[in-house]
Amino acid sequence: MATQAQAVFQVSTPDRPGLVARFAGFFFDLGVNIVDASHHAAASLEGTEPRFYMRIVVDLAGLSQPQALAKLGGSTSRRALEEAFDQLAQSLGARWEVSYADVPDRVALFVTRESACLYDLVLRQQQGELPCEIAFVAANRPDLEHVANSFRLPFFCLPVTKETKRDQESQLLELVKRHHVNLVILARYMQVLTDDFLQAAPPVINIHHGFLPAFQGAKPYHQAFERGVKLVGATAHYATKDLDQGPIIEQDVVRANHAMDPEELVRMGRDVERVVLARAVRAHLERRVFVDGRRTIIL
Amino acid sequence: MATQAQAVFQVSTPDRPGLVARFAGFFFDLGVNIVDASHHAAASLEGTEPRFYMRIVVDLAGLSQPQALAKLGGSTSRRALEEAFDQLAQSLGARWEVSYADVPDRVALFVTRESACLYDLVLRQQQGELPCEIAFVAANRPDLEHVANSFRLPFFCLPVTKETKRDQESQLLELVKRHHVNLVILARYMQVLTDDFLQAAPPVINIHHGFLPAFQGAKPYHQAFERGVKLVGATAHYATKDLDQGPIIEQDVVRANHAMDPEELVRMGRDVERVVLARAVRAHLERRVFVDGRRTIIL
Amino acid sequence: MATQAQAVFQVSTPDRPGLVARFAGFFFDLGVNIVDASHHAAASLEGTEPRFYMRIVVDLAGLSQPQALAKLGGSTSRRALEEAFDQLAQSLGARWEVSYADVPDRVALFVTRESACLYDLVLRQQQGELPCEIAFVAANRPDLEHVANSFRLPFFCLPVTKETKRDQESQLLELVKRHHVNLVILARYMQVLTDDFLQAAPPVINIHHGFLPAFQGAKPYHQAFERGVKLVGATAHYATKDLDQGPIIEQDVVRANHAMDPEELVRMGRDVERVVLARAVRAHLERRVFVDGRRTIIL
Amino acid sequence: MATQAQAVFQVSTPDRPGLVARFAGFFFDLGVNIVDASHHAAASLEGTEPRFYMRIVVDLAGLSQPQALAKLGGSTSRRALEEAFDQLAQSLGARWEVSYADVPDRVALFVTRESACLYDLVLRQQQGELPCEIAFVAANRPDLEHVANSFRLPFFCLPVTKETKRDQESQLLELVKRHHVNLVILARYMQVLTDDFLQAAPPVINIHHGFLPAFQGAKPYHQAFERGVKLVGATAHYATKDLDQGPIIEQDVVRANHAMDPEELVRMGRDVERVVLARAVRAHLERRVFVDGRRTIIL
Repeated sequence: MATQAQAVFQVSTPDRPGLVARFAGFFFDLGVNIVDASHHAAASLEGTEPRFYMRIVVDLAGLSQPQALAKLGGSTSRRALEEAFDQLAQSLGARWEVSYADVPDRVALFVTRESACLYDLVLRQQQGELPCEIAFVAANRPDLEHVANSFRLPFFCLPVTKETKRDQESQLLELVKRHHVNLVILARYMQVLTDDFLQAAPPVINIHHGFLPAFQGAKPYHQAFERGVKLVGATAHYATKDLDQGPIIEQDVVRANHAMDPEELVRMGRDVERVVLARAVRAHLERRVFVDGRRTIIL
Repeated sequence: MATQAQAVFQVSTPDRPGLVARFAGFFFDLGVNIVDASHHAAASLEGTEPRFYMRIVVDLAGLSQPQALAKLGGSTSRRALEEAFDQLAQSLGARWEVSYADVPDRVALFVTRESACLYDLVLRQQQGELPCEIAFVAANRPDLEHVANSFRLPFFCLPVTKETKRDQESQLLELVKRHHVNLVILARYMQVLTDDFLQAAPPVINIHHGFLPAFQGAKPYHQAFERGVKLVGATAHYATKDLDQGPIIEQDVVRANHAMDPEELVRMGRDVERVVLARAVRAHLERRVFVDGRRTIIL
Repeated sequence: MATQAQAVFQVSTPDRPGLVARFAGFFFDLGVNIVDASHHAAASLEGTEPRFYMRIVVDLAGLSQPQALAKLGGSTSRRALEEAFDQLAQSLGARWEVSYADVPDRVALFVTRESACLYDLVLRQQQGELPCEIAFVAANRPDLEHVANSFRLPFFCLPVTKETKRDQESQLLELVKRHHVNLVILARYMQVLTDDFLQAAPPVINIHHGFLPAFQGAKPYHQAFERGVKLVGATAHYATKDLDQGPIIEQDVVRANHAMDPEELVRMGRDVERVVLARAVRAHLERRVFVDGRRTIIL
Repeated sequence: MATQAQAVFQVSTPDRPGLVARFAGFFFDLGVNIVDASHHAAASLEGTEPRFYMRIVVDLAGLSQPQALAKLGGSTSRRALEEAFDQLAQSLGARWEVSYADVPDRVALFVTRESACLYDLVLRQQQGELPCEIAFVAANRPDLEHVANSFRLPFFCLPVTKETKRDQESQLLELVKRHHVNLVILARYMQVLTDDFLQAAPPVINIHHGFLPAFQGAKPYHQAFERGVKLVGATAHYATKDLDQGPIIEQDVVRANHAMDPEELVRMGRDVERVVLARAVRAHLERRVFVDGRRTIIL
């Protein structure tokens, strides 16, 4: 897990020889130690150009050494490091981002009535499993206010109707911005977000209580029961304007059988949903997730 | 596992009180010992009448005792037992079937080019895992003849084109009947069977190399790769005229990740397919599978 | 799930022909409908007599009908039903117990410092997944008092040292009796209970954070790391005087790899522990668990 | 999967900054493209020095380019490449090995009576799943000769008694050497190999039909049955002189229940064994396995 002095660089670039050596060499030359690194060259099925993805975790302690000072032109600020890295990235046509362990993500949780995922995420955050701060909980109903209160989290209830959807989303977006949120988690938020909201908002992770793409849309467990499937599952994915079609981050299943009615499937599914959502959120927060078209690469 | 002297009764009837007592009592009164019994009352989602399914394994040794002799009117033949059971069944509006351990099912394996499932089923049958006889192997290509030969199984190659499909299926059906086959297994047979064939044939079990209903149709692993799913699976189901829509008997999954190309997913999927198909075939042969509309009950 | 008018009978008896018919017939004759029934004749490895176990869920509504009235000698009380069943049971040498859905079990949770299992069990109970009442939370440290408080559950802190262990256990036992507790759950209670306590207490379910019998005793995740296992698991079992040797109720695993340090294994294991413990508790509360020597039968 | 022109370098060295950059840079400077690379710095629990492990797959096509020619002093032979790499390795105190895709491993299969793992490995090798040649099959009994024959594999039957063990192992070793075998697979070979054999032989992979370290020694499924475990598994590991204590390469489990007798557990276990052994062998052949004390690192 990242400690205070660490940074994670995420790089994406057209694949070509020597990229690992170039990026690893950059930090080696600075005297900045690479704590963890992994990469993947994503093959393409349709003949488009393959892309290279790399995740590099570095220990910033090295920044204060003379070697870094010399290379970075006298400054050892994060800014100087970023500028130097950007030069390398530009020369390779790479897109990149960096995040610092001591600047944790700020997360907003959107909920409706079901408490399982809400409790689960808050408890994991408290136990140090999720490196983030929970900025607030928002809901379209008041039911879960007591949960937010018991953990002393700000709670905003913004009811929504077909007519007020646009307004309500504006208010949500306003909250997201005012609280400097950079990740929204739909923890069983029973509303579809508009493309306008998704375009304007930071990344949004949704938990779908079904094994996508098997059971899209509503009541997946009823669909599963009627079809007699022997497994039920859950899928965490980035929300996109096409419902339940965003890049899948994580999914899992449990065995089911004929004796389980839809309520029992829902109950079993809830256990999978929580674990799948938590794993996906953790991977995102640790900057392991790269979106490659309709897929994700998890490094 | 069933031994020589055992029979399995499968019963299906509209649900009502006292059914377990009635069916169990029938054998108790005869002095015929119940070795294993299980039942399920299938709830219905659409308000249709719930049905009761029961599987009863009995030890026929009791049939030769005076108690059975007296109850069955002097005869202790299987025929007499069946007639007595039929009377009970009719009084309850039940459908039923019986199979005897010393009259094993006769199975036909339909294949094309891939050998994994063929080898797997034959080896399991040889090791006593599948209580059946393999009557023959049929194929629309000659590729796997050497496999059938190495196990001394009859092999019939019946090529098929769009124009000859009807004829070829007639020949297959002829083979099925001549060899007294009562189960057909599509062990990666790369042809869709017509409804006419399915209507005339004994039950047909198919292995679909994908997690239904997620990836119906062709190239499911390519679909899975492009969509970036984190699990791949296989589904064994009874073949019906709607492709990949028949009642599911068994399914399972393995974890996948971004680094696996479609070929790797195929390879991993092959391991799941074999196990899923074998489990489904075994459940069918042991008379554990009951079809309840679009679902199965496995007792 | 059991509704108000239901009762669950658990029967254990030496195996012999006709038991299913006898027990099912008992309720049929009374006009009491069997909602669910399952049974198992446990084979014995060492040549001891095989035992028969049966679980029967009945709908007590039938008790108020004339048929039951006649059979039970004019009374349709639960007491009369129990007396009639006891006669049958005695004639078969059976041990039996009955529980009623409208008299839920009263559960005590013993904890120390870790909150995950405590939260999990309380939230499941609130959501109706666990048919019981939580009588109180007891701990040997004060750390989790706020959790009990937030759910308005009585909390008793009973510190323990080597010298005071006997006294502390007496106090625990006193609490258990005063609150009419009939199930104790060790939800990460970091103390070994003496045989004296276990003899005097109602059943005790423990969660062991390892895959028994692989990693008994302390620090199983460190053991797992050093040995390089590729799976880590958890085991829920009845507590007996031999540490981690009691009959196993449920267990499960998750995949691990070399990159996970002991802390990561602990984190992953926590997810398994919660689910495994919850499944075991639910099976116990639903009266599905039968202890057969060192094993359990789950019906 | 490796193609003809590829090589895999395995490196192990005390951990220190800059290793990724150094090794990646070596190939970049030569113009030899890295197809795949991964590494792990193994934390140590006991305070011993952490070690760094790296697996690098390169495309040797680059060797014939002028850049490599210049750097390697006029030669572009594999020998020249190895010498250059060895210089780097020595400067870093690294141990290393290289294998070439066009020089496949030669594997010997040791068996006794059970055919499942033998069939499985041979079929997978034939389907291209296992990049190796099968040099021969050896057995201490004649039972499986027909299987070897049906695949036209040399079969050597070397019976063994307590008295002849040393001699028999000498003969096995002689066969291993004469056939240039560099991997021995114990595919249900029911003999313990002596330390003398293991010292003299190439790596030996064993499949243990139990979930280590839970059920060491004989009859693990009987142990599992008597203990009532809810999962049964299999473990593939390198054979060492301490029975069932060698570094674990892969393991997996399937769910079990009370209704399964030891024979059924054996049958289910066989499915896990085959898959676990095949995965372990494949990882070894692809040079993904690094032994780190009692553990393995799989890259």
